[in-house]
Amino acid sequence: MAQVKLHGLYGSPFVHRVELVLKLKGVEYEYIEEDMVNKSSLLLKYNPIYQKVPVFLHNEKPIVESLEIVEYIDEIWKGNPILPQDPYDKAMARFWAKFIDYKCRSAIWNSIWSKGEEQEKAKKEAGEALKILDNELKDKKFFGGDKIGLADIVGNFIAFWSGILEEMSGVTLITEDKYPNLCRWIAEYLNCSIVKESLPDRGIIFSYFQARYQ
Amino acid sequence: MAQVKLHGLYGSPFVHRVELVLKLKGVEYEYIEEDMVNKSSLLLKYNPIYQKVPVFLHNEKPIVESLEIVEYIDEIWKGNPILPQDPYDKAMARFWAKFIDYKCRSAIWNSIWSKGEEQEKAKKEAGEALKILDNELKDKKFFGGDKIGLADIVGNFIAFWSGILEEMSGVTLITEDKYPNLCRWIAEYLNCSIVKESLPDRGIIFSYFQARYQ
Repeated sequence: MAQVKLHGLYGSPFVHRVELVLKLKGVEYEYIEEDMVNKSSLLLKYNPIYQKVPVFLHNEKPIVESLEIVEYIDEIWKGNPILPQDPYDKAMARFWAKFIDYKCRSAIWNSIWSKGEEQEKAKKEAGEALKILDNELKDKKFFGGDKIGLADIVGNFIAFWSGILEEMSGVTLITEDKYPNLCRWIAEYLNCSIVKESLPDRGIIFSYFQARYQ
Repeated sequence: MAQVKLHGLYGSPFVHRVELVLKLKGVEYEYIEEDMVNKSSLLLKYNPIYQKVPVFLHNEKPIVESLEIVEYIDEIWKGNPILPQDPYDKAMARFWAKFIDYKCRSAIWNSIWSKGEEQEKAKKEAGEALKILDNELKDKKFFGGDKIGLADIVGNFIAFWSGILEEMSGVTLITEDKYPNLCRWIAEYLNCSIVKESLPDRGIIFSYFQARYQ
């Protein structure tokens, strides 16, 4: 029997990606909550370079970095595939996942946490990136087509965390009139029963960010 | 017969990654040199989001971003595999490729082009990242083991471009005494006949950077 462990942190969108994929595939796993102020010796052993979560273990062999973990899980447990089988579609899924991860997420994050000129620049960048996503979702239920795929899972930050950050900070980024397709996608994504089950508590995340913001 | 085209730019390490993989696999392709000052309508059509090279076309379908292109090529043309077959080894190859691409390459680049405090910070970061790479290469000929794999191909920047940038700027980063395994890897990599064949001319790249530096 495969031994699967996940070292995580409550409320982390990166850890949530891995948890969602494990749940979508019905893989049983042991969850170990990490204290990022006092990092465990196991975390430092398994991820000496980044010293971050998630750390995923399969038969005691560690994998770090959420995108690498998700691709690995998808290759080992074939049911409910996260990536398309067709090589071209797979390349497109990876393209969108990285666009969301490196362009959108960082621009949204900086729109919330920076100030002045830097904030205006980040908001402009976020607006442009969100427009691209809105256009991509024009004729699609999910980035993955009819069901949740890699880019949707990476987009969890936009679907759940962004709204909390916007409300907490008073910075408005994603609105129905500007991004109707993206807003429909957010509603679809959050309405999936398996997503609902695995998301952290909104109130706890709100309070966490609020304390940090002040 | 498959139609393969590559839109590139002479001297780009990102384009070179794709060219090397095509050569390693013996895939015939048409090369189209782009002018990045006056971008062609085809480049803008195929890569409207980033408007960058490389753009790879297979049967008229475009793929952008060098890592996505390399993974696609490796899946379509199976000979001389770039990624390992084992899912765990594959995850490790992707981990090192991204570490080199996002941590080392940017730290080396900033060590050359920034000044003052920012430069010192970048040099420290580059030093730490290079030490990690040196350690990873302790008992290996290549990152991919006995032959060139994904991380080696991504590491082309360290093997070839870094040395030119160091010589041109006078900023010393990679030395034999600090990184003996990495220096041995650089020599091995540059000594591969297929690498030698496909690298751009050192003098041209040197002059290009020198003009930009001044």
